[in-house]
Amino acid sequence: MSEPIPTEAQAASTQAAPPAASGEESTAPAPTEGDAPAGPSKAELKRRAKEAEKAKKAADRAAREEEEKRKREAKEAEDHAKQNYGKLPLHQSQERNGRKFLKFSELSEESVGQRVVFRARMHNSRAQGAKIVFLNFRQQTHTLQGVLVVSGEKDENQVSKQMLKYAQLIPSESIVLVEGVIKSAEVKSCTITNYEVGVYKLFTAVEVGDLPFSIDDASRAEADFERAEKDENLQFSRVSLVTRLDNRVMDLRTPSNQAIFRIQSAVGQLFRDYLNSQGFIEIHSPKLQGAATESGASVFKVQYFNSTAFLAQSPQLAKQMAIAGDMERVYEIGPVFRAEDSNTHRHMTEFMGLDLEMAIEEHYHEVLDVLDSMLKNIFSGLKEKYSHEIEVIKKQFPHEDFLFLDETLRLPFSEGIKMLKEAGAKGSDGEELGELDDLSTENEKFLGRLVRVKYQTDYFILDKFPLAIRPFYTMPDPVDPTLSNSYDFFMRGEEILSGAQRVHDPTFLAERMRSVGIDPATMTGYLDAFRLGAPPHGGGGIGLERVVMLFLKLGNIRRASLFPRDPKRLNP
Amino acid sequence: MSEPIPTEAQAASTQAAPPAASGEESTAPAPTEGDAPAGPSKAELKRRAKEAEKAKKAADRAAREEEEKRKREAKEAEDHAKQNYGKLPLHQSQERNGRKFLKFSELSEESVGQRVVFRARMHNSRAQGAKIVFLNFRQQTHTLQGVLVVSGEKDENQVSKQMLKYAQLIPSESIVLVEGVIKSAEVKSCTITNYEVGVYKLFTAVEVGDLPFSIDDASRAEADFERAEKDENLQFSRVSLVTRLDNRVMDLRTPSNQAIFRIQSAVGQLFRDYLNSQGFIEIHSPKLQGAATESGASVFKVQYFNSTAFLAQSPQLAKQMAIAGDMERVYEIGPVFRAEDSNTHRHMTEFMGLDLEMAIEEHYHEVLDVLDSMLKNIFSGLKEKYSHEIEVIKKQFPHEDFLFLDETLRLPFSEGIKMLKEAGAKGSDGEELGELDDLSTENEKFLGRLVRVKYQTDYFILDKFPLAIRPFYTMPDPVDPTLSNSYDFFMRGEEILSGAQRVHDPTFLAERMRSVGIDPATMTGYLDAFRLGAPPHGGGGIGLERVVMLFLKLGNIRRASLFPRDPKRLNP
Repeated sequence: MSEPIPTEAQAASTQAAPPAASGEESTAPAPTEGDAPAGPSKAELKRRAKEAEKAKKAADRAAREEEEKRKREAKEAEDHAKQNYGKLPLHQSQERNGRKFLKFSELSEESVGQRVVFRARMHNSRAQGAKIVFLNFRQQTHTLQGVLVVSGEKDENQVSKQMLKYAQLIPSESIVLVEGVIKSAEVKSCTITNYEVGVYKLFTAVEVGDLPFSIDDASRAEADFERAEKDENLQFSRVSLVTRLDNRVMDLRTPSNQAIFRIQSAVGQLFRDYLNSQGFIEIHSPKLQGAATESGASVFKVQYFNSTAFLAQSPQLAKQMAIAGDMERVYEIGPVFRAEDSNTHRHMTEFMGLDLEMAIEEHYHEVLDVLDSMLKNIFSGLKEKYSHEIEVIKKQFPHEDFLFLDETLRLPFSEGIKMLKEAGAKGSDGEELGELDDLSTENEKFLGRLVRVKYQTDYFILDKFPLAIRPFYTMPDPVDPTLSNSYDFFMRGEEILSGAQRVHDPTFLAERMRSVGIDPATMTGYLDAFRLGAPPHGGGGIGLERVVMLFLKLGNIRRASLFPRDPKRLNP
Repeated sequence: MSEPIPTEAQAASTQAAPPAASGEESTAPAPTEGDAPAGPSKAELKRRAKEAEKAKKAADRAAREEEEKRKREAKEAEDHAKQNYGKLPLHQSQERNGRKFLKFSELSEESVGQRVVFRARMHNSRAQGAKIVFLNFRQQTHTLQGVLVVSGEKDENQVSKQMLKYAQLIPSESIVLVEGVIKSAEVKSCTITNYEVGVYKLFTAVEVGDLPFSIDDASRAEADFERAEKDENLQFSRVSLVTRLDNRVMDLRTPSNQAIFRIQSAVGQLFRDYLNSQGFIEIHSPKLQGAATESGASVFKVQYFNSTAFLAQSPQLAKQMAIAGDMERVYEIGPVFRAEDSNTHRHMTEFMGLDLEMAIEEHYHEVLDVLDSMLKNIFSGLKEKYSHEIEVIKKQFPHEDFLFLDETLRLPFSEGIKMLKEAGAKGSDGEELGELDDLSTENEKFLGRLVRVKYQTDYFILDKFPLAIRPFYTMPDPVDPTLSNSYDFFMRGEEILSGAQRVHDPTFLAERMRSVGIDPATMTGYLDAFRLGAPPHGGGGIGLERVVMLFLKLGNIRRASLFPRDPKRLNP
């Protein structure tokens, strides 16, 4: 048996606010004695007259208020439903009854006829005549229709006209506590189309005031606006990305955002699940660094007591040190900081890196295999377990399903260049594409389209990048010194993962540094890690938000980040 | 069938280094013509004589080297095992044969008689007479004995005297590739006591030079040193924590460290597993903040393009905003930064926070229940699945098993104070302990001991802390305004988790700010999150390294951090 909500004691306390002070006692200072004349002056008489008038008015007002109060109380006495609605006092954990609260996602045929209690957002309401109000309750990605009908019966489930009015006036986004009975129904205006709740009790737990925008406006797809342009009866407000991010708490409540962050959480989970099954352990490396590793250009400086620290641009060195420390196979999920003033759809100053590093036995393709299986595990895991979320997101961000092959396409870099050249692609300078040049973002996307047409996949690997365009710690190819044991992974024509076999020999590493103009003396910390002996190893790093953005085709990486950070945004 | 390692081609290339230049060609400049006299001067004659002598010496040396080379080659020709050992060329992923490499942890009765190949550290070696060398190979927490015996047979598995000598001279910590046959044996000097490997091939993949300390020295327990003090035959070097941390890569290879970081990884895994099963999702909140939240005193400043950012001291605000954004139940595992100049055994400037936050229905004890079950899931998970690691750690850090009850002890704060008072505890000022005072670290530990004696547990909860000693966002008790809906969790007398129901009402929150002297105008960002309506909620935050340190009784939090950061340490 579920208890009524709230208990009588609680409901009573909603009326327990102190009465407003009716008229203030005069606090005017008494006239000072001394220089003043003995009898009341003209001014004084005028003042007294005014005061008398004021007192009269106050008395009248008090009488009027008394009368109104009497009437109100009489009316309330008639309102036999008054214990069934109202504003709750501040929730301070007054009592615990152990009631089970309904989650809309758990509704099933078995729920029909059951009396339930739940907490939800008031999404919106609409009256039908004088005796019925339809309420749209929301929990995350689900909305459930509530029906409030004025009843004649004077039982404990009575719904009065006053209660109906109260329900209609609850502001959108307020948090309500509802008690009622689940019924079978055919509903069009909610995501739950086969049930509704007949409402008997309705309390406001948290009342919300002005909203920066409505959830409905923030949930529309581009196609809705195109429809509205052709139909003058439709008036939709467009909510810009900036407005959304400025009011991210509100924006996060849209069904697509609820689904996006479930997917984001799932990507991390699937990443770990696969790697745990392959003998990896999770590490946590410090983000505060004593020296700027890799490249000093794009690193944030931190005031560290009386000295300076730097924010890690990647866990590269730390994970390699873990390998040198015999941890064999490690991964890390942690923030990565880039002080680059890049204002694009795919750059942020802080993002989540999914990094791994592993010792290899024979060949760096052992790493490639792990990375590839891990990513396919993510893609298939999302498709299998998160189809509801993907469908919700598609309503606002329509996209073709992400295509990937059972056996991933592994294209040598030179082969990618060949495909591009055959299709007429040029370098960023308009010159002929060279086999040792880096790929521009445009050519990456172009290659993604060519691959999709030729191989029917949105996911592939480019292997054997030219040595010259990779970091100094990349292991050169054993045969062709212009190539390297390195690779990038692509989703929908954008790079999501970069990795390589690393140089594990300290002498050769110093040589590689010098060959790219780095003085090994400036990176002794890095070299020291290998002087104690590191096994041959390789790894890679993935941008979590990029994977989410590209899998769901969200178009902007900020949509895949809870509270994105870019050169212009540090809040909220 | 496993392939021989390395292939003939690879082995040959080990000898393929260019021969050392024997004597350099004279590159002295020819004497300049012009002012010089026609005939050779005295100096010139002297120079020529010297040169002739030099040439003679070079010729002699060349002849000597030629002779030595001939002898060496003759000897090598006699060494029928020369293809079975040596230094490998740099591993550049030359080829991939798909061989399965043995992990010592997978050895079983079935392995006996099998030919195996593995990569390992050379832990140490010791000769027995002229024909046998025992090698101690190490993989993470396991060591396996290898036996190399000079054989008379001239077959492909032949072990020569030269090979024996080579094996003995491989420096400790070098990485070797070994091929051999697993045999049953009784071994005392290794962790694997029932098997050994008869070695047929032994190659050095990575050779290591000078070591800062030995793994054996770094692995000793306090008791070993006590033993050494009484026995003059034992000479053990003590490796200080500072030396360890300065050479962390080396230190991480000790069996106890290998085990500690498996436990650390497992704690995070068990944390997530439990929360995932309870409908939580993982979030990632930004560590770069536009304003110093909570308190400005202990926050790191970051130069953010042309402005200033701050490193998050906790994800407190972000996770509360996620709740206001209808995410219902969230957790985060991420770095937490504290710019406190605290140099104690339990403070770091960067540590891993395991944080969670959840909407509540009736009572904040719903949060307490989740936190408690989650922690018990961690404790029992570690005991069940990581008993090997715990035993390995106990060898270096002996400790009593961590005690916890099926039904966790939940002590009201006032009851804790009462227990302390009855046991004669005083406040830090020597005064009588008050029911509304904070607990000193000493009294926390004292209470932990009292609880252990009375209730036989190392783990308990203190509930209902005085309001005045908790942050302003803590929800007051509904009845006693001096108390609050907040709690700390303790392990072995040290706090590991702090949490509370939060104030979710923006008006009341502003009031609470004012009551502790904070101007709400300085925290509009925080207040804005609640103006859009947040459900009643609560949560808590755990220090990952503290849980690991206290569960395993490591005595210093730095031992539970891969690369610890404190006011004096930013490297490695």
